[in-house]
Amino acid sequence: MDVKKNRPLILITNDDGIDAKGIGVLTTEMLKLGDVIVVAPDSARSGQSNALTVMHPIRFKKIEETEGLIRFSCTGTPTDCVKLAMNEIVDRKPDLVVAGINHGSNSAINVIYSGTMGAVLEGCENGIPSIGFSINDHSLEADFNFFQPFLFRIAQTTIDSGLAPEVCLNVNAPVGEIKGIKVVRQCKGRWTKEFAKRTDPHGRAYFWLTGYFENHEPEAQDTDEWALNQGFISIVPTKIDLTAYEAIESIAGWDLI
Amino acid sequence: MDVKKNRPLILITNDDGIDAKGIGVLTTEMLKLGDVIVVAPDSARSGQSNALTVMHPIRFKKIEETEGLIRFSCTGTPTDCVKLAMNEIVDRKPDLVVAGINHGSNSAINVIYSGTMGAVLEGCENGIPSIGFSINDHSLEADFNFFQPFLFRIAQTTIDSGLAPEVCLNVNAPVGEIKGIKVVRQCKGRWTKEFAKRTDPHGRAYFWLTGYFENHEPEAQDTDEWALNQGFISIVPTKIDLTAYEAIESIAGWDLI
Repeated sequence: MDVKKNRPLILITNDDGIDAKGIGVLTTEMLKLGDVIVVAPDSARSGQSNALTVMHPIRFKKIEETEGLIRFSCTGTPTDCVKLAMNEIVDRKPDLVVAGINHGSNSAINVIYSGTMGAVLEGCENGIPSIGFSINDHSLEADFNFFQPFLFRIAQTTIDSGLAPEVCLNVNAPVGEIKGIKVVRQCKGRWTKEFAKRTDPHGRAYFWLTGYFENHEPEAQDTDEWALNQGFISIVPTKIDLTAYEAIESIAGWDLI
Repeated sequence: MDVKKNRPLILITNDDGIDAKGIGVLTTEMLKLGDVIVVAPDSARSGQSNALTVMHPIRFKKIEETEGLIRFSCTGTPTDCVKLAMNEIVDRKPDLVVAGINHGSNSAINVIYSGTMGAVLEGCENGIPSIGFSINDHSLEADFNFFQPFLFRIAQTTIDSGLAPEVCLNVNAPVGEIKGIKVVRQCKGRWTKEFAKRTDPHGRAYFWLTGYFENHEPEAQDTDEWALNQGFISIVPTKIDLTAYEAIESIAGWDLI
């Protein structure tokens, strides 16, 4: 890789595909901070979570190289992109992994389905400060103008301050004007009425994933859903250790043998 | 659904596909505990994490119905299977969701890539006690004989004792004789050397996911990796709230605006 050694190196990916508007905005902002390598899926990979491509091989190709920026498209998932970048593309450890800007919120339980956050967890697992950026607007033409000035500041501060091991950031922005930033927790809730049933010309049913998010704690004022609904950017420190430590002792007391 | 109302209802899925040996063993054992509905992928979906099928619709079909057992194959991911079951198939809330028996360990960081555990997190999100069962053997013909007697006991005790909200169980078994059960935490570690490079007849490179797990705390005696290596079944209480609570205060102190 022909990247300068004296600037931070930033690895960018997303799950909406390398041609999405959001990753373009994010790349523009990260170039103000350092040298950038983009390794992103060649088309949309929404809802891919931490999925890996196991059953067939993947490929990548360079599609652009300019001053401080190299872009690769990849046939894999967002997590594959980070793995490929770390194993086969970068020649030094990135200072930051960022994913997004996702077209659609990854607040609340969406964090576990999100390909954007899958890539961020992968960066985190590699010991690199990692941030997922998303906006609460699924439109391909989502307006990032209000969010855009915050990207550099959050990324710069994350590099400067560092993150605890195994902790990354899930950053979500509201639509429209932004009142500020709240550091909050993942809201409890779930999706309901999740399928739209259709019938094909042969009379056989098929099902499209859809649904409604049900907030299980609409009154709480320390959650990402609350922050977004109030017009704030939400930052949820997010971790890759899923252990429910508080449950170990009681389960160890079960009579299992 | 024509299932008896007086026995526990158990929903089973996996990520190795409905014809895998592991799900057959698990189904046999769960039928001793209650009525069983199997909704599992029609073929292998390893490494699918919490992936959702977003870009195209999914289908399911009944492939068997006998006393206390109905089996459906589904074109979606393990998480899709649980969502479809909950939204379109069951007529009452299952008492337990179990996934597996996965051919291959889901200990340590594998939990975030695992389709088996993706399904378990989905069951958990639906407020149902949920357990993922895996064995540390990727072979299609893995020997489940030592593990099999523990399945009923762990499942029965989980139903009887219940689990805290948003907590599920990640259960992994060693190969061969089993010394007992340890309730432990997710071991820290990561995969390295993750791709095997090949060249196609046209001279273009492609990459297969592979790699080696690097245990970052081989001396620790309270992790799932340690338990498995010592010949114990590991149970890690696992949660769907990924918030790093301990990091909120310090990040809230950053000068971000």
